[in-house]
Amino acid sequence: LTSRLPDVGTTIFTVMSALATEKGAVNLGQGFPDFHCDPALVDAVADAMRSGLNQYPPMTGIPGLREVVADKVEAIYGHRYDPATEITVTAGATQGILTSVLCCVHPGDEVIVIEPAYDSYVPAIQLAGGVPVFVQMEVTAAGYAVPWQKVAAAVSPRTRLIMINSPHNPTGSVLRIADINALADIVRGTGILVLSDEVYEHMVYDGARHESVCRHPELAARSFVVSSFGKTYHVTGWKIGYVAAPAALMSEFRKVHQFNVFTVNTPVQYGLAAFMKNPAPYLELPAFYQRKRDLFREGLAATRFKLLPSDGTYFQCVEYSDVSSLPEADFAKWLTTEIGVAAIPVSAFYHEPRESGIVRFCFAKQDETLKLALERLSKL
Amino acid sequence: LTSRLPDVGTTIFTVMSALATEKGAVNLGQGFPDFHCDPALVDAVADAMRSGLNQYPPMTGIPGLREVVADKVEAIYGHRYDPATEITVTAGATQGILTSVLCCVHPGDEVIVIEPAYDSYVPAIQLAGGVPVFVQMEVTAAGYAVPWQKVAAAVSPRTRLIMINSPHNPTGSVLRIADINALADIVRGTGILVLSDEVYEHMVYDGARHESVCRHPELAARSFVVSSFGKTYHVTGWKIGYVAAPAALMSEFRKVHQFNVFTVNTPVQYGLAAFMKNPAPYLELPAFYQRKRDLFREGLAATRFKLLPSDGTYFQCVEYSDVSSLPEADFAKWLTTEIGVAAIPVSAFYHEPRESGIVRFCFAKQDETLKLALERLSKL
Ligand SMILES: CSCCC(=O)C(=O)O
Ligand SMILES: CSCCC(=O)C(=O)O
Repeated sequence: LTSRLPDVGTTIFTVMSALATEKGAVNLGQGFPDFHCDPALVDAVADAMRSGLNQYPPMTGIPGLREVVADKVEAIYGHRYDPATEITVTAGATQGILTSVLCCVHPGDEVIVIEPAYDSYVPAIQLAGGVPVFVQMEVTAAGYAVPWQKVAAAVSPRTRLIMINSPHNPTGSVLRIADINALADIVRGTGILVLSDEVYEHMVYDGARHESVCRHPELAARSFVVSSFGKTYHVTGWKIGYVAAPAALMSEFRKVHQFNVFTVNTPVQYGLAAFMKNPAPYLELPAFYQRKRDLFREGLAATRFKLLPSDGTYFQCVEYSDVSSLPEADFAKWLTTEIGVAAIPVSAFYHEPRESGIVRFCFAKQDETLKLALERLSKL
Repeated sequence: LTSRLPDVGTTIFTVMSALATEKGAVNLGQGFPDFHCDPALVDAVADAMRSGLNQYPPMTGIPGLREVVADKVEAIYGHRYDPATEITVTAGATQGILTSVLCCVHPGDEVIVIEPAYDSYVPAIQLAGGVPVFVQMEVTAAGYAVPWQKVAAAVSPRTRLIMINSPHNPTGSVLRIADINALADIVRGTGILVLSDEVYEHMVYDGARHESVCRHPELAARSFVVSSFGKTYHVTGWKIGYVAAPAALMSEFRKVHQFNVFTVNTPVQYGLAAFMKNPAPYLELPAFYQRKRDLFREGLAATRFKLLPSDGTYFQCVEYSDVSSLPEADFAKWLTTEIGVAAIPVSAFYHEPRESGIVRFCFAKQDETLKLALERLSKL
């Protein structure tokens, strides 16, 4: 059997979580909370199951959930998606990304990927028969930044799609209005589409706002916007997200979606639709995570790691040249095994080996977990 | 935007369910039960959520669920899959089908599809860049049958995969040992793989046994076997199934799976793993559905429809030439609108318009629902 994805191994998240479990390490690797979701959300899903809402929902998701998403997006970003034709509930953001790529990328089309990049982007492009074209972020004193002139230079007549991600995994960087304007300048007047991975949209810190592409009409008109309920509501294991796009794009998305997963767990959709009527959980999320970020950064400041900015996401990157000269993957394993704290090597987010001496920690953890990790890291 | 799936519209199931709702018709179209699942199953999922099992499970599914599946398959079919390397939990059977096809079909590869065929098969092949090669089932006095000599004739050096489905949707036919032997003869000594859609495995009637391909070592060694928890446990809206395959195939499957949905709802997996320790629900399923089938057939025998056999699945096909000369799609709409009973035209399961004068009813319904439908149908 000839592989369709010859370069793919087990994801780094699986590898590091397994090692963390095996070694009893504090797992700051894979991005997921180690605390509970709101019990009211669990009750809402249980209520839906008990009332018998256990058969196929509509292919695009239940209207109640699509409507509450449309209202929320409009309230926050000022852009109204039509829930009937422009929003589809997905089995997690990853499925939303693959489905977006499969529905618009034809064999031979080029897709611009900005590295470091989430590890599902390139396999999605390869499965569609597309060709990834890579541009690397630059590490400046202010942290990771997208060199837009290089993105512009990477555009060719074959460019079909540009994939962006803000707040950015793994770097914790956030696109600002100048970035969005630079992107708009690049795509203006072309047929290039945008896939905007915004799963950490509610984790932007220090009072900054999330520049969803849907705030910007020129980009909204050509973008698939991918989001995740799992990350916002502390239920990464529920595997539910959504994609929003203008009707012409969404109709192509749905053609693929209906023959991929067809639809998404019914009671979880009803539970979320009921629970999301209260905006407090996502309005309070920036403060909730910023406090954890600050606690974690304060602790790290007393170690030999150099802190990069974390302007968004629940990730904190650190440069470790004062601690070790190991390559990133080896360092992450050593840290897990010998120090008892799991991290993710940023090199895993590049298509070619690239060593920056940086690893990523996840701070979506109970304060005690973060303190235990800091205690161990401060011994270095 | 040039479509990747130009021929695809909204699935017939969505179209007919929407029409049934609009017209207040008894919905015997889309295949789903109108009765509740076992409350113990709901409790098991709610318990898992309440105990905090809401974060990412392992990419392949929780070990407990893969193990209970391996044990069940071994107990029934006598074939042992290694739960660690040969079983993956999927976000429903449809996702299992697309993922199987994407992981083994390369652009230009041919895939043999036996029609009538479930409507996701051909789009899955097209998304992989494959070429569907069609063979039509024949309608004999004994019902629908696969003409294996035509399947053999359809094989070419480019054939990568043969897709089969038993018990068969929409015809309710079931492959017997002679069919399996014929298939084994065709693939023996070739590199051709098999995708066996067995989602109705526990709905085989009149004491017959389900000929899972995994009973047959020659086929087991080259097959993706797709099954569904939703159909067996009356929870079609939970969107959970699994794929079993030899390790070499499963390792390719998982490469695509991890970048499609990554994994499947955690509490549903724990709930199912706990609930499935009791084999009674699936052991009793044939008798449960056979009684409904018989009730429904008895009622139909008193109408002007001609009954085809229903040896498996929860579907009953009928020939309607004594009732109407409309084409199938129009007849199904007329029946929904004017008579108040929704059905699915079998023509929707062919890639080219093909009229057999046959529609499909779903009898996974409460007795009262079936009686109400029969009352309406008997007026014809
Ligand atoms: C799907 S497992 C990975 C979770 C995640 O998004 C991350 O850790 O980056
Ligand atoms: C995924 S909706 C269709 C359900 C079904 O399998 C059928 O009705 O044939």
